[in-house]
Amino acid sequence: MAASPGLPPGAAHELELLFGPERCHTDPDTLAIYATDDTPRSVPPAGVVFPATTEEVAAVVRTAHRHGVPVVARGAGSGNVGGALPVPGALVVSFECMDAILEVDPANRLLRAQPGVTNQQVQEAAAAHGLFWPPDPGSSPYCQVGGNIAMNSAGPGAVKRGVTRDWVLGLEAVTGTGEVLRAGARTTKGVVGYDLTRLLIGSEGTLGLVTEATLRLWPRPTTKRTARAAFASVADAGEAVQRIMAGGAVPSALEFMDSLAIDALRRGGFGADLPDGTGAVLMVEADGPEAAVAEDFADLTGRLEGPGLLEVRTGASAEEIKELWKARKSLSRAVKRLAPLKINEDVVVPVTALAAFIGRLEGLASEFGLPIVNFGHAGNGNIHVNLMVHPDDPDERARARACLSRVFDTVLELGGTLSGEHGVGSEKAPFVARELDATSRALHNQIKAAFDPKGILNPGKAF
Amino acid sequence: MAASPGLPPGAAHELELLFGPERCHTDPDTLAIYATDDTPRSVPPAGVVFPATTEEVAAVVRTAHRHGVPVVARGAGSGNVGGALPVPGALVVSFECMDAILEVDPANRLLRAQPGVTNQQVQEAAAAHGLFWPPDPGSSPYCQVGGNIAMNSAGPGAVKRGVTRDWVLGLEAVTGTGEVLRAGARTTKGVVGYDLTRLLIGSEGTLGLVTEATLRLWPRPTTKRTARAAFASVADAGEAVQRIMAGGAVPSALEFMDSLAIDALRRGGFGADLPDGTGAVLMVEADGPEAAVAEDFADLTGRLEGPGLLEVRTGASAEEIKELWKARKSLSRAVKRLAPLKINEDVVVPVTALAAFIGRLEGLASEFGLPIVNFGHAGNGNIHVNLMVHPDDPDERARARACLSRVFDTVLELGGTLSGEHGVGSEKAPFVARELDATSRALHNQIKAAFDPKGILNPGKAF
Repeated sequence: MAASPGLPPGAAHELELLFGPERCHTDPDTLAIYATDDTPRSVPPAGVVFPATTEEVAAVVRTAHRHGVPVVARGAGSGNVGGALPVPGALVVSFECMDAILEVDPANRLLRAQPGVTNQQVQEAAAAHGLFWPPDPGSSPYCQVGGNIAMNSAGPGAVKRGVTRDWVLGLEAVTGTGEVLRAGARTTKGVVGYDLTRLLIGSEGTLGLVTEATLRLWPRPTTKRTARAAFASVADAGEAVQRIMAGGAVPSALEFMDSLAIDALRRGGFGADLPDGTGAVLMVEADGPEAAVAEDFADLTGRLEGPGLLEVRTGASAEEIKELWKARKSLSRAVKRLAPLKINEDVVVPVTALAAFIGRLEGLASEFGLPIVNFGHAGNGNIHVNLMVHPDDPDERARARACLSRVFDTVLELGGTLSGEHGVGSEKAPFVARELDATSRALHNQIKAAFDPKGILNPGKAF
Repeated sequence: MAASPGLPPGAAHELELLFGPERCHTDPDTLAIYATDDTPRSVPPAGVVFPATTEEVAAVVRTAHRHGVPVVARGAGSGNVGGALPVPGALVVSFECMDAILEVDPANRLLRAQPGVTNQQVQEAAAAHGLFWPPDPGSSPYCQVGGNIAMNSAGPGAVKRGVTRDWVLGLEAVTGTGEVLRAGARTTKGVVGYDLTRLLIGSEGTLGLVTEATLRLWPRPTTKRTARAAFASVADAGEAVQRIMAGGAVPSALEFMDSLAIDALRRGGFGADLPDGTGAVLMVEADGPEAAVAEDFADLTGRLEGPGLLEVRTGASAEEIKELWKARKSLSRAVKRLAPLKINEDVVVPVTALAAFIGRLEGLASEFGLPIVNFGHAGNGNIHVNLMVHPDDPDERARARACLSRVFDTVLELGGTLSGEHGVGSEKAPFVARELDATSRALHNQIKAAFDPKGILNPGKAF
């Protein structure tokens, strides 16, 4: 390896000895590949290494610790808050060579995986035993278990089955000094010691690099039914969400999109079959064993009935369900076409505040002269707020920044939280102090110092 | 308040000013009441205070911090690992005056409670809205939310719905310096900052005193069906547990008792209706909406079929279900009668290791000449191992200690954990180093120092 201008020569030399030229790169082309995630920003690192074992990860971190080199763990790079975005001079640790499923134990409903295994590979290995791993981010075909754990990822299924932190039994991780720890258990209960497992989950690579995860699996639902409901207004849809969430049947998904999202879809060639005057759409799904699904689905669709309901379409076969979801699944792409830059914020408000929140966003949209497109996981009150911006227009950029700040204040005023599933990363770090109190923030700093005394792990992220 | 020999005079004076004589006690009679929990030990504290607000809790801890007085938070005192057992010179903070349900918000499925509210009061307030709080320890009629959170409590329902840490959205707590922090959210999703909520849950009062909890509620199951199955041997019952846990239907309880437990019941006048030759009993329950329960229950009882099954009795009405559970619910009391001292250990092994573990325990019982009675939550592999001891016999006491040490080694050898739901407290603290690695333990000490720099909160507990 040629001496890199970014890495201290001693560190570069140690890494070359550890990994050889195949698994340690400092050439501009490779660095460019690892410079980005799903934010619009790009920061080339000083080097990229590809460890294959826990011991190699520990060795990398010990080297980085000795030389004071920032370490940025990287999964698929599909995050959109800059969690995996390098900082200048950083060493990226990519988990592409740690992609083995180490064990599937169906009788104990667990699967042990290295961090570079994709969410989908977990699902496939589990499905062979009639099981699944509930976390279901939209990026599941390519996002990795390590990233899911770092960001505490989730998707539509969270309304019924929770998020990543609910589905991890134990972790192996390397701290900021290069020590290896094992947290948690192989069992579904365990109360010995502090919950370091969940402290690591969602810590965005700032406390440790996960090198192995013991995932908790669950019986795969055998049946699914889906309804797509068109409402005249967001307020009407919001009322329906409240009726559903106050009821006894738990949906396995309860998704929402507002009228600008519907417009975007229509421009993209989807949603042509929605009735005229549709101002909001809900997607409701029930899953489980057959009899239970029939019972739940009847309850859920019954609760859709109310003021402003224009139409309900239902599907039971895999094909019908796919057809109904098509519009929702095309949404991210369709919305991207509305303007050159989509500032996609992931916020949460209490379910009862959903309609009020969308109303407030409409107010902000007209105040700042920016389209705001909203969709998301209504059953959790988790809304993706998309500000559509022309980044070449400095005035529009300034308005977007000011508007965003007001969006966050509105979320907190309504009793919500600044991120539901995308995380904080570099993008939301400046806003964390609005949500977390001073005592919590001081504890964050002390916990960080305990795991990573030199502050080399993913600096500037998470808080 | 008279100057207490146990409390430094300055601290006693400050507490008297804060609380007056009604809510601050140092008389021997009161101290004796707060000297015990559900272990056989007794350690009178130096004082007991009864704060009524978060600010008062913070003031108590600030006083204790200034004067270096140990602080032991206390709920109902129903724990059995010494978690609420005072240390000499300690100030007990009892939450009896903080027993208000602050809010029930059915549409957002949450309930806000002070720590002194009992588990049962939570259930009653939630039931009024068709909801419940899933954590279901055996002590639910009197144990308190604060204790449930401190110990990460659970019960039979954990096999389907998890433990306390899965059902808390957010916490308010006072740290060891008397600062107030709010962690978590009012929403079912939230990934901003480190998971201080779950770091506090299960920390056994060593990191903070919980002053308010936002609990996540869930639709209350409307139907229940129960089966009691008699097996010829533990091995046969263990096989049935594995068949059930590898299946698609999730039981809402899957309880187990071994032959000595059955003997104890019979001596106590229960279980007379069990067939001759019963060597193990399983209790299996399904709950949920009616159609789902019928489907699940058919699946579950089908999986009971196999070698060694002697009999299955089922119940659907509330009365039949109560009758079937009677034996299991009388077990703790019946076992207590077998010997003057019951050393009740709560351990977990993988579900697939259950029968092997009970076999190993039988070996230890004969090696050490002590009856070992086993029952517990088989679906989680969570077994209550009861060593029956005559404490006046020093040789038997010594054998019990040696046997216990071997029980713990066996649990860890089988891939288990030393506690599933009772916690570590003072009783298991000496054994924690066998389970947690050195890196984890060092982090525990640093996290502890961050929350409680003087080490005044529940010293000697948890790790």
